[in-house]
Amino acid sequence: MAKAPKNAISPTRAEDYPEWYQQVIRAADLAENSPVRGCMVIKPWGYQLWENMQRALDDMFKATGHQNAYFPLFIPMSFLEKEAEHVEGFAKECAVVTHHRLEPDPEGGLRPAGELEEPLIVRPTSETIIGATYAKWVQSYRDLPILINQWANVVRWEMRTRMFLRTAEFLWQEGHTVHATEAEAIEETEKMIDVYADFARNWMAMPVTIGAKTPGERFPGAVETLSIEAMMQDRKALQAGTSHFLGQNFSKAQEIVFQSESGSREYAWTTSWGVSTRLVGALIMTHSDDDGFVVPPRLAPIHIVILPIYKEESRSAVLEYIDSLATALRDQSFHGAPIRVEVDDRDMRGGEKKWHHVKRGVPIRLEVGPKDMEKDSVFLARRDLGKSVPMPRQELIANVVELLDEIQQSLYDKADQLRRDNTVTITNEKDFRDYFTPQDPESPEIHGGFAWCHFADEESLQPLLKELKVTIRCIPREANDASGTCFATGKPAAKQAIFAKAY
Amino acid sequence: MAKAPKNAISPTRAEDYPEWYQQVIRAADLAENSPVRGCMVIKPWGYQLWENMQRALDDMFKATGHQNAYFPLFIPMSFLEKEAEHVEGFAKECAVVTHHRLEPDPEGGLRPAGELEEPLIVRPTSETIIGATYAKWVQSYRDLPILINQWANVVRWEMRTRMFLRTAEFLWQEGHTVHATEAEAIEETEKMIDVYADFARNWMAMPVTIGAKTPGERFPGAVETLSIEAMMQDRKALQAGTSHFLGQNFSKAQEIVFQSESGSREYAWTTSWGVSTRLVGALIMTHSDDDGFVVPPRLAPIHIVILPIYKEESRSAVLEYIDSLATALRDQSFHGAPIRVEVDDRDMRGGEKKWHHVKRGVPIRLEVGPKDMEKDSVFLARRDLGKSVPMPRQELIANVVELLDEIQQSLYDKADQLRRDNTVTITNEKDFRDYFTPQDPESPEIHGGFAWCHFADEESLQPLLKELKVTIRCIPREANDASGTCFATGKPAAKQAIFAKAY
Ligand SMILES: [Zn+2]
Ligand SMILES: [Zn+2]
Repeated sequence: MAKAPKNAISPTRAEDYPEWYQQVIRAADLAENSPVRGCMVIKPWGYQLWENMQRALDDMFKATGHQNAYFPLFIPMSFLEKEAEHVEGFAKECAVVTHHRLEPDPEGGLRPAGELEEPLIVRPTSETIIGATYAKWVQSYRDLPILINQWANVVRWEMRTRMFLRTAEFLWQEGHTVHATEAEAIEETEKMIDVYADFARNWMAMPVTIGAKTPGERFPGAVETLSIEAMMQDRKALQAGTSHFLGQNFSKAQEIVFQSESGSREYAWTTSWGVSTRLVGALIMTHSDDDGFVVPPRLAPIHIVILPIYKEESRSAVLEYIDSLATALRDQSFHGAPIRVEVDDRDMRGGEKKWHHVKRGVPIRLEVGPKDMEKDSVFLARRDLGKSVPMPRQELIANVVELLDEIQQSLYDKADQLRRDNTVTITNEKDFRDYFTPQDPESPEIHGGFAWCHFADEESLQPLLKELKVTIRCIPREANDASGTCFATGKPAAKQAIFAKAY
Repeated sequence: MAKAPKNAISPTRAEDYPEWYQQVIRAADLAENSPVRGCMVIKPWGYQLWENMQRALDDMFKATGHQNAYFPLFIPMSFLEKEAEHVEGFAKECAVVTHHRLEPDPEGGLRPAGELEEPLIVRPTSETIIGATYAKWVQSYRDLPILINQWANVVRWEMRTRMFLRTAEFLWQEGHTVHATEAEAIEETEKMIDVYADFARNWMAMPVTIGAKTPGERFPGAVETLSIEAMMQDRKALQAGTSHFLGQNFSKAQEIVFQSESGSREYAWTTSWGVSTRLVGALIMTHSDDDGFVVPPRLAPIHIVILPIYKEESRSAVLEYIDSLATALRDQSFHGAPIRVEVDDRDMRGGEKKWHHVKRGVPIRLEVGPKDMEKDSVFLARRDLGKSVPMPRQELIANVVELLDEIQQSLYDKADQLRRDNTVTITNEKDFRDYFTPQDPESPEIHGGFAWCHFADEESLQPLLKELKVTIRCIPREANDASGTCFATGKPAAKQAIFAKAY
């Protein structure tokens, strides 16, 4: 008889981190590659995660005064031509619609027909089409601010794709706002990166650092790009959300002009901000382990799964007991919504069923059989801890909300610990090189971390960064007042940046 | 001084119905045409309606056991080639992606580059791409049923577009299910058309008839297409939702095969069903009047708008009074969600402000000034009735939920009355011709209605129907047992169908 594997996911993180990531997605039924190059199918379990993220973010956007709207999928090519810088940065690899008809070809197949006068680009982002619309909407200061968000699919023709992290088509939201003053636009930019950080920390249980991008890392056309950066378990950084202060750059390109209260004609100030299904990838890599996906309770599609254990003669008694337990749990509210409980009574081997839910990351698993019933008790396993303990039913019912909060917090703490363990301050180039060079040739994937370094000049660092495949993640907002000397050049440096390898 | 127009919308329905429709959309700020041919911008007020529709439908889908997922935007051309009949019906006019890059052209503009080996079609509907995925998922009867819905954008290259009713890009949901037995798939098809009818009647306050399409009007490839048909105010029919029983046609084309409990290999039975942003157009044309949009409370983005009326010295007292009133209203729940109240304290002329909300269709408008406060009363206007009455504050607070339900019901009743007034039974061709020929050359748009007629053979009616621009809407499920004779041929006929002009 074959020995049971120690872990549900093979390879483990230590064995092959990138492959582990793919296997977690597969084992948890989150998504799969589609027959269309670079596009994925988001399966129900993965899509529910995205829906839960959407709901939470959407509520936060609305609470900060934003409304949703919807703009066209297509952007006329001429819109991108108008904006050289934008074209440079974004529109190179994109899906181009050139025909509007299919007709039978002589070989019995189909061929494109009806060539368009002007090609249409499937939106890689919507600044240009939304800006052109805003230019019509904005006449007077009374029309401002415009605070609009769009939930949409976008397409960027990526050559190397990885599910959730980088796909040709992905789902996202893009906020696009217009303001009468620079100060108000900057305030909006900051407000939205704070919303993202709040969401990452309190819903995703994912620690993030808020910071500003250096000029070389900014969104094309932005005056300032703020981002939240998270550390994955392989110690790489993942940019989880960005908020751009666009100054008057886009309003000048798109003629978003308003008459001020004093009667003058002025260019408006704009911002844009977005997060995408990439967050699902971030969530997977922040919490999952060698047994599969781990999901924080606040985003979990199901909080608690109950597995009945019975022989035929005890069946109805056990199911009745479980039914009443499930009701008592569902009657309680966890952060404003009823606790989500699934009773899994499928005809399946117990071990297989247990592992099904472990791999999918359900936060709490309860097993209930006749013996548990006798003791008016359940067998409880926390996904984050991985061990089972008996618990009196009444105690569970009384403490379930607290327990879910505790799991949420423990996931955050664990991720935070990893980040602290792998964050260093580096003051010279030798240490920097050592830090970002894999020590263990057996597992080159996991090394390094976040290096806080004073730096003087982004340009001069490029050869070193390119060599080591390191990027400047951000100039963190927190604790960044003390000046020092550049780790590479020794020149005086006003600020520290976080350097890391990144997704 | 110019005389104030009698109505806020010009032209009126009687004067020019199609133009009235466009003007209602404009006056209510629901949507506008975009710079991209045939695509619209859905503005916040219109998008909130769609969000409210989505939320209600999504809850109903989940309550009937469905889950959401997401499939690629693009469909490889070869997928459509495989299915001749499907191509015939759908894929002719569509957006074809042929290149994946833009590069600078010699004249300083851009041009498509990177030709794809195989063109990609922007999905006009997703049967083929979803079916190909299901073929991989389904192996055994244990994998069935698959009950999945997708919220998505789709593109059909329409030549003549009209906002919400027919646009090149539109938003919709498409359910795609797979079953082990024919009976179960038929049950699903019926269940979902019932969900749509429930939604139309109880949320949209829109009476609909459930029926089956005749063979000539079916979805290409469907064995049976069920639809809900509503009557617009110009007496035309609008198909508001469809549910298709696809038999084994799609599973055979896509090899969706499963091993049955007894071990045999069988083709699965599939269904698909969908509604789209077209429903917003249906809502507009069902309830709006010559003063603009009218929206049933259950879908209204805002239930109640409060307009403060004050001079500078009474300002703070009035606003305080209103604030407490708004809180008392928001504390109440209308069909499971808090009552949505907006206080509009913008600096704007009172008449302009009032008409702003009338045109946008807010169900209840309250005006509150110092004199009302003295009487502890408000001035209340129902959008559906159009007249204002004073009402004691306590009475309003005590009865507001009932009042909203009353408005909802009265809108339904009014629409139902229109439909009853314009539904006839016709038994001969002369009456049929008379009914569907405009009597008033001044307003040819509004005439006809729903004609219930026994008919023997769809084919033989085509010349007559084509001449009069009438279509067979459906064979209604209700009251359709008595046989008779065909209105056109006099042959024995088992069933009645509803004949109407249609959107
Ligand atoms: Zn762009
Ligand atoms: Zn199709």
